[in-house]
Formats: sequence, structure tokens, C-alpha cells
Amino acid sequence: MSPERLPPFNEKIARHFVEMSNSMAGLPEYLGIRLIGMEPGRAEAELRVEEKLITAMGNMHGGVLSAFSDHLLACVCYPHMEEGAWAATTEFKVNLLAPVTGGTLRASATLVSMSKTTAVVRIDVENDGRPCSAAQGTVTLMRPRAKPRS
Amino acid sequence: MSPERLPPFNEKIARHFVEMSNSMAGLPEYLGIRLIGMEPGRAEAELRVEEKLITAMGNMHGGVLSAFSDHLLACVCYPHMEEGAWAATTEFKVNLLAPVTGGTLRASATLVSMSKTTAVVRIDVENDGRPCSAAQGTVTLMRPRAKPRS
Amino acid sequence: MSPERLPPFNEKIARHFVEMSNSMAGLPEYLGIRLIGMEPGRAEAELRVEEKLITAMGNMHGGVLSAFSDHLLACVCYPHMEEGAWAATTEFKVNLLAPVTGGTLRASATLVSMSKTTAVVRIDVENDGRPCSAAQGTVTLMRPRAKPRS
Amino acid sequence: MSPERLPPFNEKIARHFVEMSNSMAGLPEYLGIRLIGMEPGRAEAELRVEEKLITAMGNMHGGVLSAFSDHLLACVCYPHMEEGAWAATTEFKVNLLAPVTGGTLRASATLVSMSKTTAVVRIDVENDGRPCSAAQGTVTLMRPRAKPRS
Repeated sequence: MSPERLPPFNEKIARHFVEMSNSMAGLPEYLGIRLIGMEPGRAEAELRVEEKLITAMGNMHGGVLSAFSDHLLACVCYPHMEEGAWAATTEFKVNLLAPVTGGTLRASATLVSMSKTTAVVRIDVENDGRPCSAAQGTVTLMRPRAKPRS
Repeated sequence: MSPERLPPFNEKIARHFVEMSNSMAGLPEYLGIRLIGMEPGRAEAELRVEEKLITAMGNMHGGVLSAFSDHLLACVCYPHMEEGAWAATTEFKVNLLAPVTGGTLRASATLVSMSKTTAVVRIDVENDGRPCSAAQGTVTLMRPRAKPRS
Repeated sequence: MSPERLPPFNEKIARHFVEMSNSMAGLPEYLGIRLIGMEPGRAEAELRVEEKLITAMGNMHGGVLSAFSDHLLACVCYPHMEEGAWAATTEFKVNLLAPVTGGTLRASATLVSMSKTTAVVRIDVENDGRPCSAAQGTVTLMRPRAKPRS
Repeated sequence: MSPERLPPFNEKIARHFVEMSNSMAGLPEYLGIRLIGMEPGRAEAELRVEEKLITAMGNMHGGVLSAFSDHLLACVCYPHMEEGAWAATTEFKVNLLAPVTGGTLRASATLVSMSKTTAVVRIDVENDGRPCSAAQGTVTLMRPRAKPRS
């Protein structure tokens, strides 16, 4: 989406979001997702393909690419949203383009469209420069929640 | 797909596959995926939603549902394939239907169609009896590989 | 979706919708879509594969199946909605399972989930008893519009 | 996909394909699809939104966008394929981004990846400069068929 069509990009939220993202526990930590940059309509992230992500067949588990893509679908929206608002994946589709056996994954998330209540996002992932997945999905945008979990 | 349209179901491969699946390391082990039953055209699996899968917002990370679905897309094909053949997710789409905050996920994978080279599969996941995701995807079926990873 | 989880089914809207649908001009008329039955959570439709829908390669144009699926995604929602409310496809995914060369298409639309604002629907199409496409999509439900087009 | 990763682009097939496409009968003719240009990894097409494509609700039938997208998924592959080879949509997903009430649709098809047997393609459609749909799908590529339909 051309940045002029997007809601304004908030640098402060972007910086805060990158820091916060890179200290998330749970699945993003297990996978080793690192958000490395955000700009209007785009986010970039990396993931080192550690041995634990390789199956007995010798390839990385495909679920790494779908979870990575799902994670980024919402991320790219935050700097264009009100502080405290909340983005959740509604649905997405991913094509796995080539097997991954190691190296690093580099993902670009791009906003295709965004309104006050919904966004459509694409995620392209490369493995050491070679395309390995392409995703497209819908994110639902919600107003600030009263009680975030403490 | 009505079972009579499917290639024959091999009980021995099914039993072996369930055992093997439940001792997989890596992402399936991290998520806690347990394959609990296979029959012609169907597979059932469970996943206990442990605290580590809950994000700071209080909901389970959506990537759990996409990785779980991706994992099962291929599983349901194996007992209908030649021994040593190999199934890989080509693409899939998932709708996240309701937030998950705990409990157990129960997934049903159903073969929609299957030829010698490709299958279409649906995955329905319930969280303690309430639908939480619905997926549909394409699996590519490959003849036995010469050298599986030792 | 089990019918007890759905909003109530309005028989009158269903009957009215079937009649209205089968006199629609434009793309549904060109394709020859006939809605033949509605019940809680389900709709059935048919389409005779006329010669004009067959391409020079001898197969039916794939766009017939995607347009047919898109059309039915919204249809199945109406009898579960308030009178005058409006359903619009947000997105869907379709797998084309087998080439079609003639005969009749028979589609079943099934509600997977439905809230006040959104529904997830699956569409299965058979060609003379043989599965030819499987779709899954999201429908946005809107409150009655002030000014329908006269 | 960067053009250097693609199989060679055959100008002659591209020119022939554009001419042939624009004299197709059936659904593409009904919708008024005009292929207007092909270059390595890309195809552009237009469709004038005639009154017959507008429903009683005042918006263009969504099936126009899905059929248009399906049509273009295969088109963009042909100039990169062997003469006489055949491309068929396996599956695709489309997000409808904004209602269309008239004007012209302009679509860009872009090859995301392509091997000898399969391609992944994205289709972006604008309505008088405003994005109205985004699709992503898989095309199966087949070697020349012995007997095309006479």
C-alpha cells in the first residue's frame, strides 16, 4: 500500500513495539523471531534456523513459517494504530515455496490495505536470499482494551 | 471424502505413524502435539494449552493454531500412502474463530480429496468443545526418498 | 457448525431469499446459479455447465467455480440474519479439485461459525457426484442499510 | 519474483497469448477481460465494470473479482512456459478490499515463484486507482497435451 494511503505512522510506538517484541516469551522466543525494523507500511524480521527446528526428514518444520507469518501479520499494523489498540490475525494463507534446511529466514511484512477496523497484509520470507514462503492475511483491529493482563 | 474414494488405508503405517509422531522433537514437542487416532481419511490430535503458549495479552499465540494445522495437514495422508513416501504442505489457509486462553485443543484432520500426487485436507480445531480454528490446505505427495536423514 | 450454536433460522427470510436469488440478473444469471434449498446452517445450489462455460481447452473456466463459491458464501448467512441486514464476502480460498467438462455442479454451503459481525463458511461443489472444488471464506455481516438502491 | 530467477520469457508466446486471450468466448468475454500487456513475471489486464455486473444492492458482484483473478493466475505463466504447455489454477485466495460500483478494474499479476511444475502468483486489482482486491494462488504447469480440443 502506498504510505500516503495509510493512517499516520507513529515512530514512538514503532520503537517501543520493536523492543517489546524482542523480549516476548513463549512461541516467538522459542522460534527466535527478532523484529529488526519498522517503517510506514512495512516490518522486517529475522529468525535463525536452529537445529531444533529441523525435523527428522532434514527440513525445517513448515509450522515455523506459518507461525512466523502469523506473528508478523499483526506486528506491521501497530505503529499505524492508536496507542493501546490491539491487532489480531483473523485468517491468513501461506504458500511454502521451497524447503529450508538451515541458515536464516528474513521476512518482510507489507500492508496491502488498512482501515480503522481491518488490515490486509502480505508476508514474504526468504531463506538466505531465496524465497521460501509467501503469505496473505486479514488482521482485525480493536480499540484499546480496558484490562490488559497484568 | 468418502473413504471408498481414498487409496487403501494401511493400519500398520497408521500405528507406526502415531507412535513416531508422539516422539518427535522440535516444534511438535514444544507445542505438545499428541496424535491420538487415525482412521480412513481422518486423524485426531490434541494439544494442552500450557502457560508458555499464552502471550502477555492473555490469549494463546495464534501461531500455535497455524503450526498445529500445518503439522496435521501432512499427517492424515501417511496411512494412505506407500511406505517411505513423503507428504509436504504446499499451502494452507486458516481462519482463527475465537481466542483461546487455556484448556485443551482437539483437532480433526479430514481428507477432502487425494490423488497419487496431491491431497486437499481440512483441519478443524476445538478448544474444550468450542470451535477455534478452521483450515484448508494442499499437500504434495512424494515417492519414497532415497536418503532420509540419519 | 451445529445448528444449536447458530443464531435462529428464519424460514420466511429463507423462502424469500431463494425466490429472490433465482431471479437475480447479472453474473448469477449468466452462470445459471439456482439456489435450491436452505436449512439451518446450510444452503444448496446448482449450476448446469452449459457449453458457453467451456473454454477452448475443453474444460470449464475455473472462474465459474470461484464465482459460484463467492456467491454462496453470503447466501447461507441470510436466514440467520436480521431482516434487511447485509452479508458481503471479505475473503475466501478455493481449491479446484478436478477438471469439469460438462454435467451439473451441485454446491453445499455450510456455516462453520457465525457471530453478529462475521461468519466463516465452507463451500463444497460436486460435478455429477465427484468433488470438484472446496472453498472456505469469511463473510462480513452488516446491519440493515438505510438506502438500498432503488 | 526477480526476472533473473524466472524461466526465459518468450516474446512471441506473449504476443500470441495476448491476441488469443482477447478473442476468448465464454466467461472472459462476458466479464469483458482484456489482457493489455505482458512482460517478464508480469501481466496487466483491464475490465470495464458494465451495468450488468452490478447487483441490486448497487455493488459489483464479488464473483467478478474472483473470476478475474482466477483467469489471470494462469495467464502470467504462459510466456515462461514451453509452447503448447498448459497452466491450470490449483487454488487461490482472494481478499476483497473495497466495494466496486463502476469505473474500470485494472489488474496486475506478478509471479512470486515458478518451477517446471508449479507457480505461485499474486493478483492486485485497482478500481480507478483504489485497491479493490488482492489474491494469491498456485498454478499447476503441465507439459503439452496430446489432443487439444478441436
